[in-house]
Amino acid sequence: MNSIRINEDRLWSSITEMGRHGALPGGGCCRLALTREDKMGRDLFVRWAKEAGCAVSVDQVGNVYARRGGQDPDLPAVATGSHLDTQPHGGRFDGIYGVLAGLEVVRTLNDNNVRTQKPVDVIVWTNEEAARFPPPLTGSQVFAGKLKTEDVHRTLTSDGATVKDDLMDIGYYGSEIPGSRKLDAFIEAHIEQGPVLEKEVKTIGVVDCVQGAFAAEVTLTGEDGHAGTVQLDMRRDACLGAAEMIVWLNRLATDTDDLAKMTVGTLKINPNSLSTIPGRSYFTIDCRHPDRVTLESLRARVESGLAEIAARRALGFEFRIMLKKQPVKFDQNIVSIVEQATKNLAYPYKRMLSGAGHDAMNIAELAPTAMIFIPCEKGISHNEAESASLSDSAAGANVLFHAMTELAGVV
Amino acid sequence: MNSIRINEDRLWSSITEMGRHGALPGGGCCRLALTREDKMGRDLFVRWAKEAGCAVSVDQVGNVYARRGGQDPDLPAVATGSHLDTQPHGGRFDGIYGVLAGLEVVRTLNDNNVRTQKPVDVIVWTNEEAARFPPPLTGSQVFAGKLKTEDVHRTLTSDGATVKDDLMDIGYYGSEIPGSRKLDAFIEAHIEQGPVLEKEVKTIGVVDCVQGAFAAEVTLTGEDGHAGTVQLDMRRDACLGAAEMIVWLNRLATDTDDLAKMTVGTLKINPNSLSTIPGRSYFTIDCRHPDRVTLESLRARVESGLAEIAARRALGFEFRIMLKKQPVKFDQNIVSIVEQATKNLAYPYKRMLSGAGHDAMNIAELAPTAMIFIPCEKGISHNEAESASLSDSAAGANVLFHAMTELAGVV
Repeated sequence: MNSIRINEDRLWSSITEMGRHGALPGGGCCRLALTREDKMGRDLFVRWAKEAGCAVSVDQVGNVYARRGGQDPDLPAVATGSHLDTQPHGGRFDGIYGVLAGLEVVRTLNDNNVRTQKPVDVIVWTNEEAARFPPPLTGSQVFAGKLKTEDVHRTLTSDGATVKDDLMDIGYYGSEIPGSRKLDAFIEAHIEQGPVLEKEVKTIGVVDCVQGAFAAEVTLTGEDGHAGTVQLDMRRDACLGAAEMIVWLNRLATDTDDLAKMTVGTLKINPNSLSTIPGRSYFTIDCRHPDRVTLESLRARVESGLAEIAARRALGFEFRIMLKKQPVKFDQNIVSIVEQATKNLAYPYKRMLSGAGHDAMNIAELAPTAMIFIPCEKGISHNEAESASLSDSAAGANVLFHAMTELAGVV
Repeated sequence: MNSIRINEDRLWSSITEMGRHGALPGGGCCRLALTREDKMGRDLFVRWAKEAGCAVSVDQVGNVYARRGGQDPDLPAVATGSHLDTQPHGGRFDGIYGVLAGLEVVRTLNDNNVRTQKPVDVIVWTNEEAARFPPPLTGSQVFAGKLKTEDVHRTLTSDGATVKDDLMDIGYYGSEIPGSRKLDAFIEAHIEQGPVLEKEVKTIGVVDCVQGAFAAEVTLTGEDGHAGTVQLDMRRDACLGAAEMIVWLNRLATDTDDLAKMTVGTLKINPNSLSTIPGRSYFTIDCRHPDRVTLESLRARVESGLAEIAARRALGFEFRIMLKKQPVKFDQNIVSIVEQATKNLAYPYKRMLSGAGHDAMNIAELAPTAMIFIPCEKGISHNEAESASLSDSAAGANVLFHAMTELAGVV
């Protein structure tokens, strides 16, 4: 078993072939959920899965399950998968890689006549990207019981039809009840969508959690004034106040630990004129951390710290939380199995967190779950330029193969 | 002599009457240089000056000189004045006050049958505001030899005509050669256009200099990145870099002395999106100081200090000086005479600098010069809400009267 490797050329040509559905001129893909292009991508996957001997089932929100049976058909499956839908100017790897790496695991089991004790499922989750209709991670949220099937059916897409109509139109309104299928474990392979693996020259990211996040908006109100006539100590400068807060926020995150992330991505000042002291400023904060307690403490310290700076500078201060996401810790046993498989294959790797959200976050509430990351060029994603190498793609699939075989039990 | 006071009601009603030409609904004025409204304002001044027994002369760029003769007609005049043109949404005091305080000095000399040794001139400088055509301070710049009459004549206004055409249209293309008239001294009375006198509860500002200034623009180039996936120490965040610079600039000014002014009035970041680390930022700097050497040192330290921060944060750095104005020191003798007159009148006062530029800056190159400031409400100017009180207006004119009489010599 230890010497088995997936077929990297076959994996690569599958990724290339899938990329033709919704192909964009710049090398990327526009395959929005439940469109004609998504249907073609799904059809291709279903054909490949059936050719590989899988039984294919579709549930009521369009999640697709391809099962390679095990010796004991009553045992829950060891599952993998991701999504086939993309952003409007998306790439050929985000989501797709995880689905096709799963398919490659099945094909490799077939090539080597490996029989597993438990079934192996490859799953395509519906509408991870939310580019045509909300919310993100629709399919896996319904599977995990966090969203109701009926509510999803009623949702209007940006084209004006309901999701249920679209599911029927493209032939993916299945009969299986979402979440009725029990899973023994779930491992999602994905491109990192960040620069860490590339910069640290690692092939595999063994992902042990998805960080939590909060976003907030801050409005400061001072007083417009003439840049030439108002002394510094008489000013209520909303730009200077914002600048001091941004520097403070960065220091707060840096002083917390290596995992805290703090970003001011939006900033506007008013009236934005060369010789006028700005009387108003607005900025947003995006703060992330994998630990729930630390994240909550950061949220509280951000609010009180900024309020203090505002008071010292005599600035009006409004603070509003825009969103809050709790961190998700993956199952330590599954993470260890992924890590051991990586070690056995001698790939340079890093235990890491996921910066972005993934379907695996939702499945983690039902079954022991982990993720495998591979590097993507310059960390670029949600962009036609998104790219991963053949050898890294193969490495991720090999880790997935050996971790899943270990979990499924070779007969 | 010491007991003579100007007629405050007459001064106030003159300000009110002048404010009718170009009156705006909000109580302000739109009397742009060389328009029909400006002509009406000038005509009113000329009528008043002639009624006060003055000889009126106009030069080739439209500067108006109203002379009250002295005992020795060959001596250079002790002069005062300012401008009658306004910003598009201007007030009733900026410039106007200085001209009408000068007229009130002449009227008060008449009321009291005071004969002076030297002539007394009240001057209206053309186009201080530059709201219809550049540059600001046109009339006083030509008078001081810093601009050529022919160049001003050729300048196009925002209405498409040349300045020369406009001067002829409104009847203010005079024959006097600008700068040919020698001045013994020049004192300009003006509203402060800043909050200092009001906040410190002073009636008079004895202005001993006009500060210098430089303006610069800074562009920082970092790298866009995902707020959730890029570790803090891997970022090249152009917003954080700008924030650190803005805080540093403020500290540099604060540490320099009480006189340094530093303003970041314009700031933009790109792409300005909640979860994207900004890869680009742009901001402007407005820095002012009354001392030439300190101002130059600030300019050099700003450039090198910001370059250092950019280098430390691995940000591309572009720095461009947009404008530079040298400080102007007023004549210490004239400043002392103004100060002594203020003391004799027992007005609370402050020696101070002018934050904004004024015609007096240019005249200071030809003749001993100083300025008198009076408070304006909340420091607001270039705004219909611009306001000064009757008693402060009267106080400034009284100081002007006694300082000018002292300089002109009472026979």
